[in-house]
This record gives sequence, structure tokens and C-alpha cells, in this order.
Amino acid sequence: MKTVGEIGEVKTIERLVSMLGTCSDLRVGAGDDCAVTHIVGTNEDQVFTTDPLIESVHFLPTDDPIRIGNKAAGRVFSDLAAMGANPQWLLVNVVAPASLEVRALEEIYSGITKLCRQFGATLIGGDLAEGVVLELHLFGTGTLPAGSALLRSGAQVGDCIFTTGKLGGSRAGKHLDFVPCVKEGIFLRESGYVHSMVDLSDGLGSDLRHILRASRVGAQLDSLLIPCVDSIEAALFDGEDFELLFTVASSDVEQLHQKWNQQFETPLHQIGTITKAVELLELRGADGLFQSIEGKGFSHFSGS
Amino acid sequence: MKTVGEIGEVKTIERLVSMLGTCSDLRVGAGDDCAVTHIVGTNEDQVFTTDPLIESVHFLPTDDPIRIGNKAAGRVFSDLAAMGANPQWLLVNVVAPASLEVRALEEIYSGITKLCRQFGATLIGGDLAEGVVLELHLFGTGTLPAGSALLRSGAQVGDCIFTTGKLGGSRAGKHLDFVPCVKEGIFLRESGYVHSMVDLSDGLGSDLRHILRASRVGAQLDSLLIPCVDSIEAALFDGEDFELLFTVASSDVEQLHQKWNQQFETPLHQIGTITKAVELLELRGADGLFQSIEGKGFSHFSGS
Repeated sequence: MKTVGEIGEVKTIERLVSMLGTCSDLRVGAGDDCAVTHIVGTNEDQVFTTDPLIESVHFLPTDDPIRIGNKAAGRVFSDLAAMGANPQWLLVNVVAPASLEVRALEEIYSGITKLCRQFGATLIGGDLAEGVVLELHLFGTGTLPAGSALLRSGAQVGDCIFTTGKLGGSRAGKHLDFVPCVKEGIFLRESGYVHSMVDLSDGLGSDLRHILRASRVGAQLDSLLIPCVDSIEAALFDGEDFELLFTVASSDVEQLHQKWNQQFETPLHQIGTITKAVELLELRGADGLFQSIEGKGFSHFSGS
Repeated sequence: MKTVGEIGEVKTIERLVSMLGTCSDLRVGAGDDCAVTHIVGTNEDQVFTTDPLIESVHFLPTDDPIRIGNKAAGRVFSDLAAMGANPQWLLVNVVAPASLEVRALEEIYSGITKLCRQFGATLIGGDLAEGVVLELHLFGTGTLPAGSALLRSGAQVGDCIFTTGKLGGSRAGKHLDFVPCVKEGIFLRESGYVHSMVDLSDGLGSDLRHILRASRVGAQLDSLLIPCVDSIEAALFDGEDFELLFTVASSDVEQLHQKWNQQFETPLHQIGTITKAVELLELRGADGLFQSIEGKGFSHFSGS
């Protein structure tokens, strides 16, 4: 009898996902940033995501509660952004030790509600239970025109790979203060240029693999083009940048840049190309040579 | 600076609820069994609820995982039932120690998905994180015709008070094996007779108070009419019966009984009357005398 620790997070999730349900109104089940369902009787789809935020894993007990709230809501909004969805409803289950100050909990809530107001979402409920460490379990929904969700599975050979911002800054504090790319995600969906998209929560090296696996393609990244806050290692493997990663046909790149620059102040970064070598992820070094990248982003449970 | 343990669950939740958002499509915010939102462009409302299930609080590490899954999903379905809603989508965040057997997690999932199939809901996603004890955080949605949700706030003076089944059996194992009253909730909503409804999760003595507070009324219960599995104390205060508690105008009682008995095999139990003495909850003893009941159902954090 294997334990969760022995087989690791990825394989455990694979086994659980195989047990999830199907339904005619379910357009996309588990395995993307959000599940996508059709809203019967309308031309809209509704997307769903959940995200746990746990003390000493995702934040420290000494972190500012408002920033903890920002991160909790921001992670959910980042998942919604990765589909190109408009944020809608948010609920939060809090697990708290009895020793937690009520004031800290109120500040966490104000971090959450501030981000809700910024992106037109509403915190409508939740629950509170006692536990050993502080945990926030957020549940969020969003909406978008039926059939328009940007999935991990649409990348095509020859696509150019983009990110919306600099990578590898999470350890310097960005993981608590980031602004989720909600507006960018909606813009990219509406542009019609994007073939596939994901948010960067586990690191470029891990999250790009989600696109490669779902789209049955490979990728070549250029280390000189990746916008690094610090080292290329941090950009590839640190995680929690919460920028968007997406692919676009090379023939649309010029128009995309043009429209993007009319809308946003920070530039898009074109960092590589989709190839036909299924699930092979290569990095072009400063010497011009390609090296295969091993997956080693953040993962709960190490696995054996 | 007060801690959550010092001010207790109820007051902490009150302070957090005051921070929740509002929105024109939000019909009923926190403070009922579910939040109720309007589905724009349709004649339907969508209801939302979350529920945490925590090892050593809601179940024991030695409990059968399939029954743990049943309870986790059943609690969410019971909240949906309390509004009269049709279950729709379910997501689950799992927090698990690395030492948990994957097999146990799969059995928990099969307990959840079995109940989903039974009530036409679909488990569409969730997340997995590492933690000290096993926790399941469930998120559920349901639908019903716009404006038809049964709320806690509709009780009227003179209403008869009903429960759907026997109370006080949770300690004998019912809290793990109960079948949520989804069909009963939908029937009661469709009947048009019900003024207010709640599910019995914290005990009759606690949950009836939710109706009294929201409806600005009081209640007299008759101890001889309360259907007890064991003692009247257990029926009033043990919690986790997951039956429905609702109120109906006395002029509709006969017709309700008639229609109920055509549909269901177990009888309704008429246990008391709504009075005008705001928030006063009285119990008529075997001696015919009335005594006021103190609230002492289950609560996280004792409070001071």
C-alpha cells in the first residue's frame, strides 16, 4: 500500500483525476487551470477553480496578513486569468488556530476583498474551522463567452512562446504582492491570437510542460530572451511568478505586439518556439547550444 | 488584541461576514445555508456553499474512508438541500499528510463521487496540498428557479415547525452514513408551502435559532413530539443529523402531509410552533410546562 508521500503529488493527482465525473455541460474537466462548464440557456461558460494557501508552505506566520490575503485571492484570479475569464464569485474556508488574532483574520479578508474590488469579483461566503496552522482554501468562479476559454491544449508547432512579465522574482517578495494578470488574460482571449495559455505558478520549467503535454508538442526556449529578475535558474524553477505564459502563431506576432502596446505599459516577452518534439523542453544557452531541461518546479510531496 | 479562541466562532464569523461584498446579482449573501446569486440571462439562480471536514473534529483517523467521503459530500448537499436546490458542481481541496495511503484517498473520492451520482452532481476539480492532518474542503453549487430559494428569514408567527426525520442519532454513526435530504428539499421548495428552512447540522437547539434570528420570531417546541433516536438532549444539542427543519402555515399542514406521504416513505414530524417572542426558544416538557432553551450546539472555538 503506497502512501501519498511515496508516489508524490503529480501521480496522486493523476489517480484522483481519473475518478472525477463527466457531464454534457462540462466542457473541460480537471487538468487545466480551471474546469469549464456551460451555463445552460446562455452563450456563456462558467469556469471553476480552487486553491489552498497554507502557513509555512505558501506564506510565513510573520508575513503581513493583508499580503497573505492578496496572495490567496491572487492565486485564484491568476487561474481565472489563465483561461481569459472575468472573475465572478469567491468563497473562502478558513482553518485557524484559536491563538490567531481576530484582527489578523480581518486583515487577511481586507487583502482578499481589495483584490475582489479591483477585478469586479465578490466575496460571497465561506466557513471557519479550528486547526493547527492557518490555512485559506479559496474557491472562485469566472465567466467568458461560450467556447472561448484559452486552454493548455491548443499550442501548435511553430507557435511563438510569450510571457507577460519578468520571471524569478518570487523569493524577493513578489509571491505575496503580485497583481494577477486578469486584464491581460481577458485582452489575450479577446485578441483571438492565442492558441494556448497557462499561468506561471510552479515555474516556467514546470508550467510550460503542462502546455507541451496537453498539446502533444515540444518547445525551445532562448535563455537570452527570458526576462529574468535574477538568475535563469530562478526564472525556470522558483515558481509563483503568476505571469501568463501563452503561444501565438508567428504570423500574428507583429499585430499582437502592436495591440498589446496600445493597451499595456509593460512589454510582452517572446522567449521561444513550439516544436514537434513531443514533451521535449530545450533551452538555448548563451553559447548557442541546446540543452534539455529537467522538470523540477515546486511540488507538494517529493515522491520517490 | 483578542484572539479567535477568545471571541469564539460565532462572533468571529459575524465580524468577517460584515466584510463580505455586495453585487446586484447577489440575491442572498452570507448568513444562510448557501449564498444565492442570479444567473444573468436566465430564469435561474445559482447557490454556493463551502464546507470543511477535518480529521479528529469531523471524523476519526480510524473511520472508513468511503464514509468520510460520504460525509464530506453529504454536508455540502445538505446545505444545497436546505435551499431546495438541485446539486450541480463539486470541487474538493485535499490537505493530506505524506503518510496517508493513496488507496484511502481514492476511497474518500469514491464516497464523494457515489453521492454525486446519486444526486446528479459532478465532481469537476480541486487541489492537493501537504499538511499535518487530513482535511477535505468541499465547494458546491446548485441551481433553482429564480427567487425560489428557501431562506431562514421567511418564518411567520403561527407557522408549524417540522423536521424530516429522527434527531440525535449522529453519535451512533449517522453523521458518517446519512443521506442528505436533497429530494426532500426540492419537493418542499416545489410544494410552495414552506416559509423558511435550514438543515440540522449543529443541533435543533442551535439551528432553529438561525430561523428565529433571521425571521425575528420565537418558537415553542413540544418535547413529546420531537422524534428522538435516543434522548431529548441529544436531539437538541448533538448536531449532525442533517435532516431539514422548516416552517409552514398551519392552514397548509394537512395538504403538505398528504402530498409528502404520496412521495416519501418516512413521515414528517410536526414538533412545534413559531411565536412572536423574538428569539425566545421554549421547550414544553412532559409536565406541560415551558422552559427556555439555552443555545449549546456544536461550535468551533469555545469563546469566552
